[in-house]
Amino acid sequence: MADRWDAARLAAWCGLHLRAVEDALTRWVGIDAPVKLGDAMRYAVLDGGKRLRPLLVMAASESAGGNPKAAIRAACSVELIHAYSLVHDDLPCMDNDVLRRGKPTVHVQFGEADALLAGDALQALAFELLTPDDGSVTPQVQATLCRLLARAAGGQGMAGGQAIDLASVGVALDEARLREMHRLKTGALLQGSVEMGAACADVVSPTALQALRAYGAALGLAFQVVDDILDVTADSSTLGKTAGKDAASDKPTYVSLLGLDGARDQAQALLAEALAALEGSGLSDVGALRALAYMVVDRDR
Amino acid sequence: MADRWDAARLAAWCGLHLRAVEDALTRWVGIDAPVKLGDAMRYAVLDGGKRLRPLLVMAASESAGGNPKAAIRAACSVELIHAYSLVHDDLPCMDNDVLRRGKPTVHVQFGEADALLAGDALQALAFELLTPDDGSVTPQVQATLCRLLARAAGGQGMAGGQAIDLASVGVALDEARLREMHRLKTGALLQGSVEMGAACADVVSPTALQALRAYGAALGLAFQVVDDILDVTADSSTLGKTAGKDAASDKPTYVSLLGLDGARDQAQALLAEALAALEGSGLSDVGALRALAYMVVDRDR
Repeated sequence: MADRWDAARLAAWCGLHLRAVEDALTRWVGIDAPVKLGDAMRYAVLDGGKRLRPLLVMAASESAGGNPKAAIRAACSVELIHAYSLVHDDLPCMDNDVLRRGKPTVHVQFGEADALLAGDALQALAFELLTPDDGSVTPQVQATLCRLLARAAGGQGMAGGQAIDLASVGVALDEARLREMHRLKTGALLQGSVEMGAACADVVSPTALQALRAYGAALGLAFQVVDDILDVTADSSTLGKTAGKDAASDKPTYVSLLGLDGARDQAQALLAEALAALEGSGLSDVGALRALAYMVVDRDR
Repeated sequence: MADRWDAARLAAWCGLHLRAVEDALTRWVGIDAPVKLGDAMRYAVLDGGKRLRPLLVMAASESAGGNPKAAIRAACSVELIHAYSLVHDDLPCMDNDVLRRGKPTVHVQFGEADALLAGDALQALAFELLTPDDGSVTPQVQATLCRLLARAAGGQGMAGGQAIDLASVGVALDEARLREMHRLKTGALLQGSVEMGAACADVVSPTALQALRAYGAALGLAFQVVDDILDVTADSSTLGKTAGKDAASDKPTYVSLLGLDGARDQAQALLAEALAALEGSGLSDVGALRALAYMVVDRDR
């Protein structure tokens, strides 16, 4: 088994790729949209967020030998889907949240109607980024990326998970159903990010693809388990959003189901599952993917 | 100049293609989504609407010799974008409308949160339909269709037009700015439908493509002018939505700007422009496109 990257190496890798992602988002988001809409789109996307999904795309693309011009577009596209989902999630008719990443939410800042439209436009922009007509990305890769993103974002992915979540408030879910909800709500886009990264390569072996899918699935679930733990253990200023929200709204969580220690054990088991999948991938360059898995489980926000 | 189709021929052509579109939408929309979300998606899309955009896709694809399997997917995808925009447009934070196509709007029927998610999932599904992995549509055509749809739907298309519309209530717009707003709000997706139809063919001459774009642009604007006329002249039961809404909400319209007769003259001029574009396309089989242009301008709802 390869050595685990130390903190300095991960920080350097993240710094390099985060800079590229921020530059690209700054260049691409809300530029030619009508003034207030463009402002709302940029407010929702720029200067905030851990950019975990873009980093997963970049790491998976590196591991598979992907086209870097495809990877940066795929990385931005998954972040736009994530950002739009937060904007819509925060609306009064959903979670009615006023604080996000330490700033007023988009609808507080721009009004509900423009927040709604900004979310809608961000989803469209995600697919626009994936389909450049400048010859930098092959049509085959463009089509595959659009397919993976659409599936991860839609009714059988993120939006479907949100609908189950909506219907679950105050309802007793067992672990299997909680897992299914999270597999869709947050897992689909995290797993999709890994698959999209791999799809930036013209050819990926079936074994590698299968391994990356398993890694993405385990990581997606681990992310949510840790989220549930942090909702209980962290404070709002560290999180940059309202802590204790899920517990207060009587939503089922891994902590309410397994207890705090049980949830921590679960997170470690999923980390081990993700790392084992990478070991079996046959890919040589999985250092960044390994390091990101540790980062997800060890994070404090 | 070719003869104009008579009513029976147009009805037969529309009947054939509408059946195919309805069948496909029934097969594809909301099938594997969680129960209530799938129901809301199907409610928003099925059993209603004139299906003008799908018909434009089918007619343009026929004129260009497009792949029928691509065309039916493109036809459904533009209708899903249209349907999602209506669901979001009807929400309380936007137009707050309770009646659509003679039925309660989606948020009245399913609640605001599920209406929001259903719209979001419909947008994702549109791109999923465009990217099948069964070999029926070439990656080149898939990528081009996704590009055209994303541009037509996003901040520089439909969503951008809605944002300008939002900002225009009670504001005096001159005709040029009103035209710009509508070019985006409704025109972009109508023009996009025509372009997507043409893109279902592997090869289209630049002349034909340019002509179809001009046809789509003129038709898109004509559609809106007629919409403004009907808002004043038709009643709610014929329209299937609230008549007189724009006038009541002090939104600028072609009628408020040009008067009723001036708006009617404008619609006829745009019809002539659309027909002239087809004449110059070099395409032989434009009978359906011609007939649809007449239909748009002569419609009563």
